[in-house]
Amino acid sequence: MPSKPPVFQLPESLPLDCGQALESARIAYETYGALNADKSNAVLICHALTGDQYVASTHPVTGKPGWWTRMVGPGKPIDTDRFHVICANVIGSCMGSTGPASPIPGGAADGAPYAMRFPVITIRDMVRGLVALLDGLGIETLHCVVGGSMGGMQALSLAANWPGRVARILVIASTARHSAQNIAFHEVGRQAIMADPAWAQGNYYAGDTSPNNGLAVARMAAHITYLSEEGLTAKFGRRLQDRPDGSAGAKSFGFDADFQVESYLRYQGSGFTRRFDANSYLYITRAMDYFDLAEEHGGRLADAFAGSEARFCIVSFDTDWLYPTAESRHVVHALNAAGAKVSFVELSAPYGHDSFLLEHDQLDRVVRGFVE
Amino acid sequence: MPSKPPVFQLPESLPLDCGQALESARIAYETYGALNADKSNAVLICHALTGDQYVASTHPVTGKPGWWTRMVGPGKPIDTDRFHVICANVIGSCMGSTGPASPIPGGAADGAPYAMRFPVITIRDMVRGLVALLDGLGIETLHCVVGGSMGGMQALSLAANWPGRVARILVIASTARHSAQNIAFHEVGRQAIMADPAWAQGNYYAGDTSPNNGLAVARMAAHITYLSEEGLTAKFGRRLQDRPDGSAGAKSFGFDADFQVESYLRYQGSGFTRRFDANSYLYITRAMDYFDLAEEHGGRLADAFAGSEARFCIVSFDTDWLYPTAESRHVVHALNAAGAKVSFVELSAPYGHDSFLLEHDQLDRVVRGFVE
Repeated sequence: MPSKPPVFQLPESLPLDCGQALESARIAYETYGALNADKSNAVLICHALTGDQYVASTHPVTGKPGWWTRMVGPGKPIDTDRFHVICANVIGSCMGSTGPASPIPGGAADGAPYAMRFPVITIRDMVRGLVALLDGLGIETLHCVVGGSMGGMQALSLAANWPGRVARILVIASTARHSAQNIAFHEVGRQAIMADPAWAQGNYYAGDTSPNNGLAVARMAAHITYLSEEGLTAKFGRRLQDRPDGSAGAKSFGFDADFQVESYLRYQGSGFTRRFDANSYLYITRAMDYFDLAEEHGGRLADAFAGSEARFCIVSFDTDWLYPTAESRHVVHALNAAGAKVSFVELSAPYGHDSFLLEHDQLDRVVRGFVE
Repeated sequence: MPSKPPVFQLPESLPLDCGQALESARIAYETYGALNADKSNAVLICHALTGDQYVASTHPVTGKPGWWTRMVGPGKPIDTDRFHVICANVIGSCMGSTGPASPIPGGAADGAPYAMRFPVITIRDMVRGLVALLDGLGIETLHCVVGGSMGGMQALSLAANWPGRVARILVIASTARHSAQNIAFHEVGRQAIMADPAWAQGNYYAGDTSPNNGLAVARMAAHITYLSEEGLTAKFGRRLQDRPDGSAGAKSFGFDADFQVESYLRYQGSGFTRRFDANSYLYITRAMDYFDLAEEHGGRLADAFAGSEARFCIVSFDTDWLYPTAESRHVVHALNAAGAKVSFVELSAPYGHDSFLLEHDQLDRVVRGFVE
């Protein structure tokens, strides 16, 4: 029987940007590698929208390897022989940390979940939760925080709002603000979920059905934004699926998945519903859409990093159209204006935003060199 | 009382690429300007996915002006003082031409519609219908065919498959094939419609409900692809909606449309459902995804235009990421390889694919000069 994954119970209520507070919040996390005596070798990895704490260990629901096993482990770029790696499920999510599916503390005796009574959270709220976890673990200063995509937003938020808590900040394929197009794609996903009658205003936990159809459509739409046009063409082009009887692909003149790219998207959509909660998807996309680090700091991004002593490394991919290189440059310019120590690299990769999760030797070298 | 819009009843069955045929098909169309004595001044305008025949006249459902009134009319770039302009609703659509919502000819006495028994059609099938209409109108050779987006696909298909029927071909913001990314976005839309329980396997015509939620999500996802990231940023950025009580925008920390771009998308989605049939959306997107003019001609696009005597003009927009300039260049290279007369221009416009529908003086000049 596998040991129960560690869950940190916050000793105090967690104040939120919306003005409410989360009581009795819990944060589920995984660690890899030993913490040294002076607690100076901790590396916090922040996960993306649909990610989780299983960065380098088997996912308990899907049975699949961790989502960044190529990056995290003994001898790997984030070397668990040297570093104590922490990865925690963000609040609002659904892998053990407090989120919409969690019972309301002090609520009904039947343990009724928050559902849409869960407060709307922000990226900064997620990071507040992570800082509370670090407090609980007795870690005053992180050696490094690393995050891709939404993980990078958390890393930037940590650096801006808790500057004394981290020495190195590594931000990959991310942004300091969600653009109108980013918001638009998320809104399509939310509308797809909320249009599903099984969503039932968020109150589907006690029933037999979940808004899986809507959630799958949301995932499909988002998934397109994670890949580049070039990558999709290389991977699928206009190639047709082989028929169920094994014969070579031909147009069906019907609405089956004729094209391989259709089949792939359907698979991505349906697989996702087995491991993710639709309400969590609503809340986390909302937090990302609300994210605008400059706005939090009087409208000038450089002010978010004023006086920072930390070292920053910003990485973008040339085919990432979700958070294009221009967004990374925007962050780099602000860091420069703030007089921060920053290095920046745009890597070339054909696979768009998802490149940060895929095999990429140059990324490995950048990460190894910076975390070192 | 307005006169009944003209509808052409095809005298013969319409053979389709799928191997079936449409019996008793009807094509609804509008005309503008007088046909001259030798019938040499006809200009056919082909509409886009969700377009219709009301290119320069009031839409009977929405009451809005025609979709290209700035381009078509007396003294306008496509000058109805000189040209006889024809615009027909494509088969498969829902504005009077035969489509999924039409009764099956010789079918049940109650006039049961095709719904998903409608055969899957192609762009070439749409053009077959248009050619049958031209035959019926006694027009042997068009002075010009003009089309943007899916209309451009029809223009190319007409040029390739009925080369003697048209002297000038003007293709705007279009492509000779649907890419993997194009197919992926359409598949998201189809899945959104088919996931809506009100879709009911397409049999919703007799009931009180239609899959409007799914259709709205499909439209929202597609609409993002019609606009550029730059255009969305210029138009909406991260600006917040004013509150219903008239106070200035602020984050609601809820799931209302806080951002203007969310409100705009919701409006686009819900407005669309009032004028468009969900099954038509399925069939027409399928036709577009199947479109690959090279494949129809042995795999080499140049062969589609072999021996063509017509003049071509290909126009793209620099911010169009749905059918980017590279796709237009691909067509131009094929036309060059075929020895065809072709001019090509990439126009600069901030609004992405939709630029062909918007105010654009340079486009006006290109169209006027070419149609002349």
